[in-house]
Amino acid sequence: MIESVRVIGHGRAGSAIAARLAERGIGLDSEAPDLVLLCVPDAAIAEVAQRVDVGPWLAHVSGATPLAALDPHRNRFSLHPVQTFTRDRGPEQLDGAWAAVTFETDGAAAAAEWLATTLGLRPFPLADADRAIYHAGAVFASNYLVTLERVAARLFSAAGAPPEALVPLMQRTIENGFQLTGPIARGDRATIDAHLAALHERAPEVEPLYRVLAEATRP
Amino acid sequence: MIESVRVIGHGRAGSAIAARLAERGIGLDSEAPDLVLLCVPDAAIAEVAQRVDVGPWLAHVSGATPLAALDPHRNRFSLHPVQTFTRDRGPEQLDGAWAAVTFETDGAAAAAEWLATTLGLRPFPLADADRAIYHAGAVFASNYLVTLERVAARLFSAAGAPPEALVPLMQRTIENGFQLTGPIARGDRATIDAHLAALHERAPEVEPLYRVLAEATRP
Repeated sequence: MIESVRVIGHGRAGSAIAARLAERGIGLDSEAPDLVLLCVPDAAIAEVAQRVDVGPWLAHVSGATPLAALDPHRNRFSLHPVQTFTRDRGPEQLDGAWAAVTFETDGAAAAAEWLATTLGLRPFPLADADRAIYHAGAVFASNYLVTLERVAARLFSAAGAPPEALVPLMQRTIENGFQLTGPIARGDRATIDAHLAALHERAPEVEPLYRVLAEATRP
Repeated sequence: MIESVRVIGHGRAGSAIAARLAERGIGLDSEAPDLVLLCVPDAAIAEVAQRVDVGPWLAHVSGATPLAALDPHRNRFSLHPVQTFTRDRGPEQLDGAWAAVTFETDGAAAAAEWLATTLGLRPFPLADADRAIYHAGAVFASNYLVTLERVAARLFSAAGAPPEALVPLMQRTIENGFQLTGPIARGDRATIDAHLAALHERAPEVEPLYRVLAEATRP
């Protein structure tokens, strides 16, 4: 059983995770922790792993980094929360999120399951070989959503419209289960051409992005 | 004062609008309505407008369509709710949304303001000449958000991960005020290259979209 965890790295994710473990009564200050949890940047994982004594469980919380980065440790797994974190919130930002867990043994699967459940996450298994394609999906959903809002806000501003008007629209698009409405759904070529003409004239840097997204949206 | 409205067109938007007007006690069945509201597809607006008797207020709810489509009417304006509508919800889907209103006279501005307030929308003025760039922004925010989710769900499925795990991630990205996290924010080129290699091998049709969005996301 895991009763103590040492969290290394207190960035956005690590801070929320450590706070949740503390809430759950898990010891965070043990000299001999049952689990060492690396919440450091991806590029630092391999180096930090090599400095941790072999023996207890070692895990990282990266989406893209393979388990081999935890060499030479064998008692190892990874748990990647499918969530974006901010320092403005606390451990409650883990609630309702899913987590990709990767493991090589039954023991590691049990340890990963314990950690996910303790953190309040819904775990699903992810094969090490599928990490990159999985993590690219998360980038589309979160990082590129930020990009869409930035572009949309720039176009709204150019039209004198308040960018904050975009928020209820984007939230409802999710709430409605991603139903496609608007000109592409209607096959309304005239409106799409009017958009392209306006972008060409007033925001030409956005035109290629509009085109490639329109192409990807077409049924 | 507007006391009766005739709504023409009962698609997604028209149904919600008519239901809200009924809730507010506005007569919808008058033989001589004070306002005729066209909730028909963009391509049909001009034709339907020409069949409406000149005299009362005439308005459309399209984002992209110029006021000239309402010729020969002069008592005219437009009101475009910045929202996506579904038949699965009722008039409450207007709550909290903004609306772009376009008008040519003080009287039309007052009529548009009355309609927005009656529907429960927050109006802002939009110049006719700015419609296309404004509406392209709305397409980025809503339609292309659908596209991102579809692409992300396809990549998650390819990795054996549950697409429903994307929903809390996307919702929180909005709730966190569109803070950019992840590999592009960190300048983590190795992870981006790993995504591109995985897409090239397993989802090559997605690779151009990833690249153009990565380029648009870069600070």
